[in-house]
Amino acid sequence: MDFTIQSALVPVEQGYETVDVQIVDGCIVAIAPNLNLVGTAVDGRNKLLLPGFVNAHTHSPEMWQRGMIPPTPLELWIAELYEFEPLDPEQLYLSALGTAVETLLSGGTSVVDHLVMVPGRELESIAAAVRAYREVGIRAFVGPLMQDEPLTASIPSGGVEREHIPYQRSTQESIAVLQEAILQFHKPDEGIVILPAPTGLQLSSDDLFEGFIELSDRYTLPLHTHLLETKAQQMLAHEKYGCSAVEHLQQLGFLSDRTSLAHCVWLDDADIAILAETKATVVHNPLSNLRLGSGIAPILKYLRAGVNVAFGCDGSASNDSQDLLEAIKIGSILHNVTDFDYRHWMTPREAVEVAALGGATGLGMADEFGSLTVGKQADLVLYDLKNLSLLPRTDPIGLLVLGRPTQAVDSVWVRGDRIVTNGSITTINVDDLRQNLFDRSQWVTNRQSTKIAQVEAHYRSVMNLPEQMRGYS
Amino acid sequence: MDFTIQSALVPVEQGYETVDVQIVDGCIVAIAPNLNLVGTAVDGRNKLLLPGFVNAHTHSPEMWQRGMIPPTPLELWIAELYEFEPLDPEQLYLSALGTAVETLLSGGTSVVDHLVMVPGRELESIAAAVRAYREVGIRAFVGPLMQDEPLTASIPSGGVEREHIPYQRSTQESIAVLQEAILQFHKPDEGIVILPAPTGLQLSSDDLFEGFIELSDRYTLPLHTHLLETKAQQMLAHEKYGCSAVEHLQQLGFLSDRTSLAHCVWLDDADIAILAETKATVVHNPLSNLRLGSGIAPILKYLRAGVNVAFGCDGSASNDSQDLLEAIKIGSILHNVTDFDYRHWMTPREAVEVAALGGATGLGMADEFGSLTVGKQADLVLYDLKNLSLLPRTDPIGLLVLGRPTQAVDSVWVRGDRIVTNGSITTINVDDLRQNLFDRSQWVTNRQSTKIAQVEAHYRSVMNLPEQMRGYS
Repeated sequence: MDFTIQSALVPVEQGYETVDVQIVDGCIVAIAPNLNLVGTAVDGRNKLLLPGFVNAHTHSPEMWQRGMIPPTPLELWIAELYEFEPLDPEQLYLSALGTAVETLLSGGTSVVDHLVMVPGRELESIAAAVRAYREVGIRAFVGPLMQDEPLTASIPSGGVEREHIPYQRSTQESIAVLQEAILQFHKPDEGIVILPAPTGLQLSSDDLFEGFIELSDRYTLPLHTHLLETKAQQMLAHEKYGCSAVEHLQQLGFLSDRTSLAHCVWLDDADIAILAETKATVVHNPLSNLRLGSGIAPILKYLRAGVNVAFGCDGSASNDSQDLLEAIKIGSILHNVTDFDYRHWMTPREAVEVAALGGATGLGMADEFGSLTVGKQADLVLYDLKNLSLLPRTDPIGLLVLGRPTQAVDSVWVRGDRIVTNGSITTINVDDLRQNLFDRSQWVTNRQSTKIAQVEAHYRSVMNLPEQMRGYS
Repeated sequence: MDFTIQSALVPVEQGYETVDVQIVDGCIVAIAPNLNLVGTAVDGRNKLLLPGFVNAHTHSPEMWQRGMIPPTPLELWIAELYEFEPLDPEQLYLSALGTAVETLLSGGTSVVDHLVMVPGRELESIAAAVRAYREVGIRAFVGPLMQDEPLTASIPSGGVEREHIPYQRSTQESIAVLQEAILQFHKPDEGIVILPAPTGLQLSSDDLFEGFIELSDRYTLPLHTHLLETKAQQMLAHEKYGCSAVEHLQQLGFLSDRTSLAHCVWLDDADIAILAETKATVVHNPLSNLRLGSGIAPILKYLRAGVNVAFGCDGSASNDSQDLLEAIKIGSILHNVTDFDYRHWMTPREAVEVAALGGATGLGMADEFGSLTVGKQADLVLYDLKNLSLLPRTDPIGLLVLGRPTQAVDSVWVRGDRIVTNGSITTINVDDLRQNLFDRSQWVTNRQSTKIAQVEAHYRSVMNLPEQMRGYS
C-alpha cells in the first residue's frame, strides 16, 4: 500500500530537516519538504525517521536459555548451553517470533539468524523460523548453524593428544541440508534469504567451508560465520592452520564483500588489512563479548582501516536480550576507553550508519536498503520524540543512541509493509506469544551444571588459569 | 498504610522461595510462606520482589543537556556543559522529577543527587529538587555540588604557569549555603537527607573539604565527592598534593564508612588498600565512564579487596539516561574483560546486592534499608515476571540483570508508601511532566561548540595528544 510520511524529522548533512517521504510499491520515491500526498497519510510530526537497523548476528533459539547461564567464558558457556534437551520446532517458531518482536521494537527491520536446529529435524527447524519471520514481516537472513566437528574440538589442545567423538552429522549431509533449505525457503523477493553460515573455524572443517562457498557462489548468497570470538579460538586457529584464521579464510575464498563475520575480537593488524582488502564485514556484538568476557573488539581500528562494521545482539543466552538500541549504544561508547584520542570515537550519527547501512552492506544489499535514499526499499522506523526517554528535546539521534529509549518506536515498515503502529506489532498477537513463552517454561530456582565440569579442567589448564575447582577458590 | 505482599518470589540462599511479606508502619515485619493478611493485600504472584536499588550518583539538572554533547573526555565535555545558560529553579524541579521517575521505573528507590545549582540562587535550587523528590516520594540524598576553584584549574598544568579567574562563590559562602540547606531541608525521617558533597579535588580547596567534613560530623551526615574519574585528575592530584588523591583525602579525614566516592577509575593498589581500611564506598558509574572515555574502574579488584561498591547512573549529560538496570547490567558484565579468570566475575545476584545493599552501605544506612530483612524499612520493588522481556521463565535475577527489562517494574514502595502501581507512577502526573519537558526545550539541529575550543589546545598538549584541531584531523 502506498503512503506518505508527512512532516517527519530526518538527519541531513548539517543537522535535521522536516520532510515528507513518499513510498510507492514498497520503495522510497521522494524525500522533500511539502510533497503531494501519495496514498495514505502518516503523521510524522514530532517523530524521527531513520532507516531500519540490522540485527546482524543472533541465534533466535537461545531465547529459551536467556538469563540462565552464569557468567563464564564461551568455551564453558557453550557446554552448558548444549546441556539442554534439543528444542522442538514449535519452540523454535516461538523464539523466532520473540526475537523478531524485540528487534522490531528496538529499531531493527532485518535479522540475521544463525539458527540452531533440532538435530535430525533440520528442515523442520528452518521452516519454523521462516514461518515466524514471514508472519511477523521482518526481513530475515536465516543461516542454518552447521558444524562437522564435535564441541570438544573447539578448545585448543595445548599440545595434549585428545580424542573426539565424531560429530553427529557428516559434512556432506550438512551441505545437502543447506542446499535443500535454499531450494525450499530462499525467497529474496519476499524478504527471506537463506545464507550459508558454518559455525566457525573452531567446529568446521575446510570441506564444510568449501561446500558452503560453492553454494554461495551458485545461488549468489551472502556468507556468514563466527570469527575469532575468543583468545582460545585464536590459539586453536594457529594449532589447526599454522597461520591466522583470517589468512586461512582468505585462502579458502570465504572472504568477500558479501561475507559477514561475527565478533572479530582477536584480530591483529595484518588480519585487519585482509578484511579491508577483501571488503568483508565485521559484525560487532559488544554485549555478548562483555557477558562472556571474550574481549573488546578493536572496532575503532576497523573503522579507521575502512572495514565495514555492523551491529548484532548475538543470541539471547549470551546477551540476554534482542534490544538493538542497547547493542548500538554500548557498541559505540565502549570503544572510547580503547583510544585516548577522542577524535577517533564513534559519534551517534556514525553509530546509526553502522547499524543500518553497515548491516545492509555486510549482506551485499546496500543498494536495496539501509538508508533514506530514493529508489531503496522502505525499511523504515519512526521514533516518537514525545516519549519521556527522548525528552527534553535536544539532539534526536544523540538521545536515541546515548540514552536508553523505552518504547520509543512508534512505527516500523519493512519493504513498505507497516508492521508496527503506535508502538505495537500489528501482524501477530504478542500477548499470545507472551502466554506461550510463559506456559512452556518454568523458573529455574537452583540450577546445577554438570557439563561445565567435564571441560573445565582442560580449559583452565590450556588457558593457564589456576587449578582449583569452581566454588573452592 | 500496612499491607501484605502475597505469594511473591524472593531470592534465598539456594534459589528462590514463594513468600508473603508483611509491612507495618513502613517496615518489614515478617517474611515467610503463608502469613496472615495484615492490612491491604498485594498480589505478588508471578512477580519477583527485591529491595529497591540506590542510584548512588547523579546530577539531575543534566537531564536538560542529555543527548546533546558529542563524545569527548570529561575535561572538554564539562566546558561544553557549562556553556549553557544557568537553569532556573523551576527547570531544576522538572529535571529532578524526571530523574526520580526514570530511577523508580528501573528498580531504584533512592537517588543521590549531586545537585548542580543556579549560581546565586542556591537555596532556591535545593528547594526545587527537594520539592520534586518529596512529591514523587523517592528517598533522596541531595548533595549541593560545590566547588571553590574555577573550571580551568581542573586541567593539569603540565608545568606551564596558568592564570585562573577566581571562582564566583567563596569557600566560606559555600559552607554557609550548605549549613543553611541542612537546617532547612535535612529531614531524614521524611526520606530527605542533605549531604556535604564537594565537587572533587579538581575544583575544591582543602578548606572546602574541611568545612564540609566539619558539617558532616556536626550533623552526622554522609559525605560524597567525585574521585579520580579521569587520568587528567590523577595527574592533577600529583601536581596539587605531591601524593595520590586518596592519600590526601585520608589525611584530610574525608574517608569513612559513610563516605561515597563517585567513579574511582584511576586508583592504584595502595589507594585500594586505603579504601578498604577506611570503609569508604566506591560508586561505579560504568556508562558515564565509557561515554566520556574515562576508563574502566577496577571494580573486581575493589570487590576482592573488600571495598564496598554501589552503582550510579551519573548525570544524564554523560550517560544519557537514568536507567539503573542498564547501569547494573553494564557495571557487572563490563569487568569480565578485565580479568581472564571467570571465577572473579560478578554474578547477577552479586550485582543486585551491590545495587541495593551496597548503595545503602555507602550512605551509612545499611541498617535501615537495602535488603529484604525483617526490621528494615520497606524500600521494595516488585517486577512483573510475565513481561515479555523477562520471558521465557528461567532465572529471574539472571533475566533482570543480564537482559534488558522493558517496563518490567510493577510496583514500588519507599518507606512503605506505594508510589508505583501497575507500572505507573501514582504520585505525580507523568504526562504533565512530559509535556512540560517538551514545551521548555527545542531540538538542537546544528549545534556548534565554542567553549571546547578554548580549553582544547591546552588539554591536548598536557595529555600528549597530537596537535591538529578538531575537524582538521
